[in-house]
Amino acid sequence: MDILQYQKEFLSYLESKKWIHEPKNLYEPIDYILQLGGKRIRPVLTLMAADIFSNNVSKALPAALAVEVFHNFTLVHDDIMDDAPLRRGKATVHEKWNINTGILSGDAMLILAYQYFENYEPVVFQKLAKLFSKTALEVCDGQQLDVDFETRSDVTIPEYINMIRLKTSVLVAAALKMGAIVAETTEENASLIYDFGLNLGLAFQLQDDYLDTFGDPETFGKQVGGDIIENKKTYLYLKALEVANDDEKGKLQYFYKKKLNENSVKISEVRRIFELNDIPLLIKQEIANYTEKAFDTLAKMSIEDVDKQSLKDFGLWLMNRSV
Amino acid sequence: MDILQYQKEFLSYLESKKWIHEPKNLYEPIDYILQLGGKRIRPVLTLMAADIFSNNVSKALPAALAVEVFHNFTLVHDDIMDDAPLRRGKATVHEKWNINTGILSGDAMLILAYQYFENYEPVVFQKLAKLFSKTALEVCDGQQLDVDFETRSDVTIPEYINMIRLKTSVLVAAALKMGAIVAETTEENASLIYDFGLNLGLAFQLQDDYLDTFGDPETFGKQVGGDIIENKKTYLYLKALEVANDDEKGKLQYFYKKKLNENSVKISEVRRIFELNDIPLLIKQEIANYTEKAFDTLAKMSIEDVDKQSLKDFGLWLMNRSV
Repeated sequence: MDILQYQKEFLSYLESKKWIHEPKNLYEPIDYILQLGGKRIRPVLTLMAADIFSNNVSKALPAALAVEVFHNFTLVHDDIMDDAPLRRGKATVHEKWNINTGILSGDAMLILAYQYFENYEPVVFQKLAKLFSKTALEVCDGQQLDVDFETRSDVTIPEYINMIRLKTSVLVAAALKMGAIVAETTEENASLIYDFGLNLGLAFQLQDDYLDTFGDPETFGKQVGGDIIENKKTYLYLKALEVANDDEKGKLQYFYKKKLNENSVKISEVRRIFELNDIPLLIKQEIANYTEKAFDTLAKMSIEDVDKQSLKDFGLWLMNRSV
Repeated sequence: MDILQYQKEFLSYLESKKWIHEPKNLYEPIDYILQLGGKRIRPVLTLMAADIFSNNVSKALPAALAVEVFHNFTLVHDDIMDDAPLRRGKATVHEKWNINTGILSGDAMLILAYQYFENYEPVVFQKLAKLFSKTALEVCDGQQLDVDFETRSDVTIPEYINMIRLKTSVLVAAALKMGAIVAETTEENASLIYDFGLNLGLAFQLQDDYLDTFGDPETFGKQVGGDIIENKKTYLYLKALEVANDDEKGKLQYFYKKKLNENSVKISEVRRIFELNDIPLLIKQEIANYTEKAFDTLAKMSIEDVDKQSLKDFGLWLMNRSV
């Protein structure tokens, strides 16, 4: 199967679920956010892993749905915390309804995610739920670190990598491992596919940092320069602080203290400092580094070469977003 | 064992857990809310049920903790939704920290609750997690109905009973059933103890409605008259609308449309209408009704009489709050 087929399988399973029942004010927002679209990367990964390790895609559908519902729960609560008005070009849940609805519908989604595991027999159920709880708590830790970093001026690159690992990568890794668990493959394969996902997730997030500042406005989904406007201490900024001269460093720190109404000068100045210090090159090396690490774990996996190639193709597809 | 011993066992288990680790801003609020105290009714019920069905209290401690952590999660998120400044006489989490901390720490608590079930082998784990998810979702439904009722003028008493069943009683029932599951008693006993808890929970919540308006300010934990001030459509209000004459009904509806700074006239007028219509008597009959239903299920249970008496004593202790 290819990625489009996994997406199709997942979407028709998603469609088959009736979200809306009483009390409607709780379940309509859940239906709304789940219908907003997106690439469905995480559930696709669960289906792909199950396909590779057992040739059984449909058995993994409930686990894939759990992952997607959880991911959307984090979006609903994060959007409240970030005061974000838009998500995928549409009003966020707390904007369309209100903050209380966002909190409560999010809570219900987290519980619903656990419920999908009830489709599996006890041993698989427990493995899935354990991995899920561990991952979900790590995502909370990552979100908290992200918030903490906003008011800290001494964030290091290893701290930043740890934060994005928790906030983003562990869920990508867990999505894959859940497919492996459902397929009841070896512990070793399950562990290797987790590592593959973890490194691919890091590469993906670092590329997101790169694209946010240097991406093509035509193809990048979000506003290019958004991280600079928001004073986000991404890899680009932290690396620049490491390698820039005192004058440039001072300028960067000056810009990152301000929230402006007109950001074009700020964006172009910050980009210029990044470019003068070869930051685009340095982050691309880092992205290549994590991508390679991910691909290296494939070599150790006891699956057929054609399946290794599928996973590699997925990685390349994921990373091939208009760099 | 008596109730004080269960409380003591639970508290020393709670103390043994180290809540605070990195990121501190996520886990300190969790430690804070769990240390605020309270009667620990729900975990005591879990321990008591386990004791009765298996003589093994300590095996039920992780399940009891899951119930208490979940209950406190609902307090943290509900306090945000209700904009409540105080909880047990201390600042609420979102007041002491901020709303975002309240949301995220609450989320982490919901996940932590699930993690405590990992102490059990797969079959028991799945039974506990299934009951927990079902219950947690019902609590969300109940909270949503409570919010919905605020802006509705046509709430019926059966709808109100259903709301408090979901918001309060199912967790009391589930706390008991979890003890039964850990003890691996019969399905029938587990189901009967659930029903006992459900009816006792309804009696308890109705008594809370009564005490909120007619309780002794010296012994009732909260501000007497609070529900009237907040225009809460409790059983008292809904029953009065059913039985009062048009003049009194008009007065009640008039008062319940207003939020005032000075509430003493409103409180005494509303109380007078309740009293004129025998509402205190009617709610006491309803409380007795549900308490009796709870005690009736005890008769059907295949446990020793001394254990039936313990459950009855607990019910009497719980209901014997300065009516």
